[in-house]
Amino acid sequence: MGRKSDARARIIGTSWMLFRDKGYGGVGVQEICEAAGVKKGSFYHFFPSKRDLILAFIERAEGMFMGMFEHVGASGRPYLAQIRMIFEMDAGACVEDVQQAGRVLGCPIGNLALEFVGSDEEIRERLAGVFSKMAGGFEGLINGALEAGEIEGVDAKGSSRAIVAYFEGVTMLAKTGNDPGIVETLADGALALIGVMPARAK
Amino acid sequence: MGRKSDARARIIGTSWMLFRDKGYGGVGVQEICEAAGVKKGSFYHFFPSKRDLILAFIERAEGMFMGMFEHVGASGRPYLAQIRMIFEMDAGACVEDVQQAGRVLGCPIGNLALEFVGSDEEIRERLAGVFSKMAGGFEGLINGALEAGEIEGVDAKGSSRAIVAYFEGVTMLAKTGNDPGIVETLADGALALIGVMPARAK
Repeated sequence: MGRKSDARARIIGTSWMLFRDKGYGGVGVQEICEAAGVKKGSFYHFFPSKRDLILAFIERAEGMFMGMFEHVGASGRPYLAQIRMIFEMDAGACVEDVQQAGRVLGCPIGNLALEFVGSDEEIRERLAGVFSKMAGGFEGLINGALEAGEIEGVDAKGSSRAIVAYFEGVTMLAKTGNDPGIVETLADGALALIGVMPARAK
Repeated sequence: MGRKSDARARIIGTSWMLFRDKGYGGVGVQEICEAAGVKKGSFYHFFPSKRDLILAFIERAEGMFMGMFEHVGASGRPYLAQIRMIFEMDAGACVEDVQQAGRVLGCPIGNLALEFVGSDEEIRERLAGVFSKMAGGFEGLINGALEAGEIEGVDAKGSSRAIVAYFEGVTMLAKTGNDPGIVETLADGALALIGVMPARAK
């Protein structure tokens, strides 16, 4: 048990693993409290409902994705390599899942999107918003690659959404196959979506 | 109420909409029985547990996907056009969802995969098996395109898995955006994954 001010972070951190492992509907507040080592009163102090926790969970996921784009941007590598790095980081996250939870848990946003988008319009819009921000991150990298002459004649806006879709699908296959290697194997496809076939990308 | 022999099909048909809309965990046997117009005793006659219904649901989804590949194969169109047709059929299914349920419900296999793959190893393997069969379908079309000279130098096996990932990701974005048009807009990406950029594909 840490200080009360740590409780909120511990609850979110615990939900990060549990929601991705068992689904939002498959995890109760009681289980989260036990795993996080906080009392129910403390949970409800920070999150009036489980749904409020989901909103914080989405915010953390958005922050994580934006952090990934900052990280690859700071690498100073060519833009195409930065796009591939995002997939390599995803593969790394899948490996961490296996180490910590015994299996690939998948993308926090993708999992949530397919579990219960239909039943909550506000959450659907929040999730769609995260996908838009991810697309914005890829669009920036594609525009950088265009300006640097690494590629040409690519529709940055359309392609960026295609890459987000591919990122989510690849992560889904890794989760379903319980194999982080799937992300690594399929990463080159992200470059194919902007006209760079594997043989040229290497 | 139809004949008793219809009950099984009605239960599966009802779960087809409800599970995709509310998630497997979000729908109870009672709700399925009411929507399907069957008694609980009848439900349990055909499906000893809700999980048995999920297995039948997955079998139906697999049959639907195999039917899509048969359908495009029977079209006699060029192989690349057949690959694109699969995405057009997906877009059409999204439009049907909106007409019947008021919103895009997404892929039966993808939804299930991200809701509770972690908690049931047998179902995880069944779902991974469906993705493999879908990849087999795309692989057949890519090999056809290679033999017909429509494309060259493509790794059919690897690319087919990339296209399955893309198919699932695109369908996820359509569900999250509640917009069937997303599938149509992004369909060309499937061809980009085998080196055919939109401008050349048209």
